Amino acid sequence: LLVLLSPIISQAQSDAKEPDSSAAVPRGPVFAVEGATIRLGALYQVDATAQDTDNPSGFDIRAARLRMAAKSHGVEAFLQTDFTKTTPLYDVRVRYTPIKQIRLTAGLFKSPFSRSHLWSRSGIPLVERPVAVDAIAPRRQVGFELQARDASERVSLRAGIFNGTGRTPRSNDDNNFLYVGRLKLKQDVARATFSLGANAAYSIDSDVNLGALSSSFSGTRAVFGADASITSGLWLFAIEGLAANVSPDGGLDRRATGGYVVAGAPLFSSSLQIVARYQRFYADIAGESDQEWIEAGLNYRPAAAVRFQLTGGVPYDKSPSPDDGPRATLRFQFALN
Amino acid sequence: LLVLLSPIISQAQSDAKEPDSSAAVPRGPVFAVEGATIRLGALYQVDATAQDTDNPSGFDIRAARLRMAAKSHGVEAFLQTDFTKTTPLYDVRVRYTPIKQIRLTAGLFKSPFSRSHLWSRSGIPLVERPVAVDAIAPRRQVGFELQARDASERVSLRAGIFNGTGRTPRSNDDNNFLYVGRLKLKQDVARATFSLGANAAYSIDSDVNLGALSSSFSGTRAVFGADASITSGLWLFAIEGLAANVSPDGGLDRRATGGYVVAGAPLFSSSLQIVARYQRFYADIAGESDQEWIEAGLNYRPAAAVRFQLTGGVPYDKSPSPDDGPRATLRFQFALN
Amino acid sequence: LLVLLSPIISQAQSDAKEPDSSAAVPRGPVFAVEGATIRLGALYQVDATAQDTDNPSGFDIRAARLRMAAKSHGVEAFLQTDFTKTTPLYDVRVRYTPIKQIRLTAGLFKSPFSRSHLWSRSGIPLVERPVAVDAIAPRRQVGFELQARDASERVSLRAGIFNGTGRTPRSNDDNNFLYVGRLKLKQDVARATFSLGANAAYSIDSDVNLGALSSSFSGTRAVFGADASITSGLWLFAIEGLAANVSPDGGLDRRATGGYVVAGAPLFSSSLQIVARYQRFYADIAGESDQEWIEAGLNYRPAAAVRFQLTGGVPYDKSPSPDDGPRATLRFQFALN
Repeated sequence: LLVLLSPIISQAQSDAKEPDSSAAVPRGPVFAVEGATIRLGALYQVDATAQDTDNPSGFDIRAARLRMAAKSHGVEAFLQTDFTKTTPLYDVRVRYTPIKQIRLTAGLFKSPFSRSHLWSRSGIPLVERPVAVDAIAPRRQVGFELQARDASERVSLRAGIFNGTGRTPRSNDDNNFLYVGRLKLKQDVARATFSLGANAAYSIDSDVNLGALSSSFSGTRAVFGADASITSGLWLFAIEGLAANVSPDGGLDRRATGGYVVAGAPLFSSSLQIVARYQRFYADIAGESDQEWIEAGLNYRPAAAVRFQLTGGVPYDKSPSPDDGPRATLRFQFALN
Repeated sequence: LLVLLSPIISQAQSDAKEPDSSAAVPRGPVFAVEGATIRLGALYQVDATAQDTDNPSGFDIRAARLRMAAKSHGVEAFLQTDFTKTTPLYDVRVRYTPIKQIRLTAGLFKSPFSRSHLWSRSGIPLVERPVAVDAIAPRRQVGFELQARDASERVSLRAGIFNGTGRTPRSNDDNNFLYVGRLKLKQDVARATFSLGANAAYSIDSDVNLGALSSSFSGTRAVFGADASITSGLWLFAIEGLAANVSPDGGLDRRATGGYVVAGAPLFSSSLQIVARYQRFYADIAGESDQEWIEAGLNYRPAAAVRFQLTGGVPYDKSPSPDDGPRATLRFQFALN
Repeated sequence: LLVLLSPIISQAQSDAKEPDSSAAVPRGPVFAVEGATIRLGALYQVDATAQDTDNPSGFDIRAARLRMAAKSHGVEAFLQTDFTKTTPLYDVRVRYTPIKQIRLTAGLFKSPFSRSHLWSRSGIPLVERPVAVDAIAPRRQVGFELQARDASERVSLRAGIFNGTGRTPRSNDDNNFLYVGRLKLKQDVARATFSLGANAAYSIDSDVNLGALSSSFSGTRAVFGADASITSGLWLFAIEGLAANVSPDGGLDRRATGGYVVAGAPLFSSSLQIVARYQRFYADIAGESDQEWIEAGLNYRPAAAVRFQLTGGVPYDKSPSPDDGPRATLRFQFALN
């Protein structure tokens, strides 16, 4: 049966793939019927966390995701749910590729902003993305995107228009939209890949939840970011900076900023990686100091679908809040893309 | 593999199929194991809507559905979830077919009422069902149904008993039930199919959400409807009328009425269809005028699993409410039954 | 295709199986790809209940479960959701079996407590587990478990550490944990299997929902239980007792107790079983009397995946509450493990 499925599997290698996602995660099973193929996937993450903060130590289900990717006559459709969330819907997208260099995508999916955000969760080098990325990047949105690449795939440009209301399937909050764009340059030199990215977003909002920036925001926001990375197998060096200009209606303007530097290297073998990261986030909210973290981690992948991840971090703040204590997380991960 | 799966696929052609569902949507993959078969399906609908009303223009995820149909020794089981909803459970049913003419169904499923309601979402001619159908038909319910057909399948009779509490898996609201029945006559003449349907429902309720009729209804309701249609390929003509007599405990009786006329025809090719509809709904609620709409649409199906749908509508009311402005929706659909 | 799938199916026979689960339920389809296998499963239960209590008679969707079990290089991953619940996540676990006698499990899964609780829902002899088991056993929890068996599999020991907050994927309530252990002895004699089990649990809690014991509990709880069973085909005899010592902070200590005796036998054929049960539960809450029930049932399995279950019960209380009246439930079940 494995032999019989092989040609179908190879057909499906290119669908529904984030540009930076980890190539190491194996594909789930692919089935063909009446001119369509379906691929099933999953991502489970179980965490054990010890921390000296106001939050207790204990166990967490960090991800319980199911995926179904389908393909028919050049149209790709993708659904992903995460059952650890109150609203389990994560991605629904329909994608059309009229020619190899152009992709049109409609639905709920990651807006094209931030190298770290676009890197798929199954392959991120430490257990959590940087705080600044989660807070500042527009993340998942409902809308429409156009992606264009040159023939060599060295230059790619993505531009999207979205409701701007985040990962909610319901309708727009107002008649204004979120506009997001990202330019990425990629160059292979010897066995390494160099990458440069820049992104910007602009939105007018009425009562939108912006997470760490504002739980109910009405006004104008403009977000900027730039990133650079060099990767070669388990060798990794990446740097990214982000800034958000937030102008609430009838309130004072704020500028949230942050970023990170991360480096990784193989340790003894091709299945063990050591990683270190410095990150910073400043929300520009009265009474809140900025956050700084020094973190280190080990990633062990005994089989393609399995990963153990150990990440430890200490705050590097001048005046840390009660939530900012040293912490360590051990993660058990199972993934089929 | 396609060749090997063919006999299994043909076995599954008849299971879990609504009488009026679109034959054009391809079946999802079917697997066989130990005397059982499983079929996976999906329906994704992404909308872009422009409208001149109190509701904003923007993008919507209208459907993010996953389906699993299973069959074993003449018993069919079906599950469908829609992850755009707070309560994602849409259908769970177990069906037994003792002889070809008789079907017994238990679970959560569409109650046998209204041609438009029973037509599956992946094939409806305009992006939304008529307002009167959504408001008056009892729609999905938890309970039990008996379906009987004559050998020629020209006469079918369906009768069901349900909690009457709608699409909620929890227990009954009281010791009273909703009774629903539908009689349908079908006749093929040349290459066209003529169909006539009549349905009735009766229920005593304690605190049930009836949507547009009442958000918390206690009392007695009696619902009636009749429909007729002629179809031949993309040619379509259908007409339906519905009425609900609503007698709230200690309140005044109301009679909600409505219906529609819809016509469709192929345009240039067998993958493009043009559709027009007139519809009306009167809720008989003090201060609310009746709604009337003139609508038109284009349906383009470049591949069996893919459909683009463009629907535009203008209100035809004498005194339209702020929600009743002109609107247009472009839908991207991917479906595997 | 069935022939081709056979070797893959047999590989998957041992994964993700509860020790006492019904062997009669057929396995769902199994797929292999790139060194991993995936198995899909489902459990649907539709109930019709008639009762003479404060709760109404009617129809219920009792279970609408989807399962996905995956296996790769000795690591098993399992996801189960039940879409009848507000929080559909039921199980997410990653399991590693370094040697045949040792299993390490991390995630959300059934804590090792109570023979009745560990028996899978698709095979329980009456439509509901005993009230005392549902109320006293710690049930599903998020955490970590070690399971050890001797080579003959006659002695098994399971020990787990959990958040103690129940079936919620979020983090721990405090820095204290729930500890659960179970010892089980099993012996085959002729065609019968004898089994003896004992379990204990201890937890310090801050604001945890303990269901029938307390909706918001802060304090210390210690739970004990013992069970014994003899099974041989459809012949079944089992007895279990449970007790919980509950010490709320600043409140009076309580001792909830309960248990059951259940017996089953084949009737006329190997697909029909008759069952009788006596059960008792005392919550030790002021103003609440203890519950006692005499119950009887018929289980009919016309095909491996299909089961009809009829259970009737009458209260045997001295002073029954308005909820304690005679009741009968007819269940339609479809299951693929």
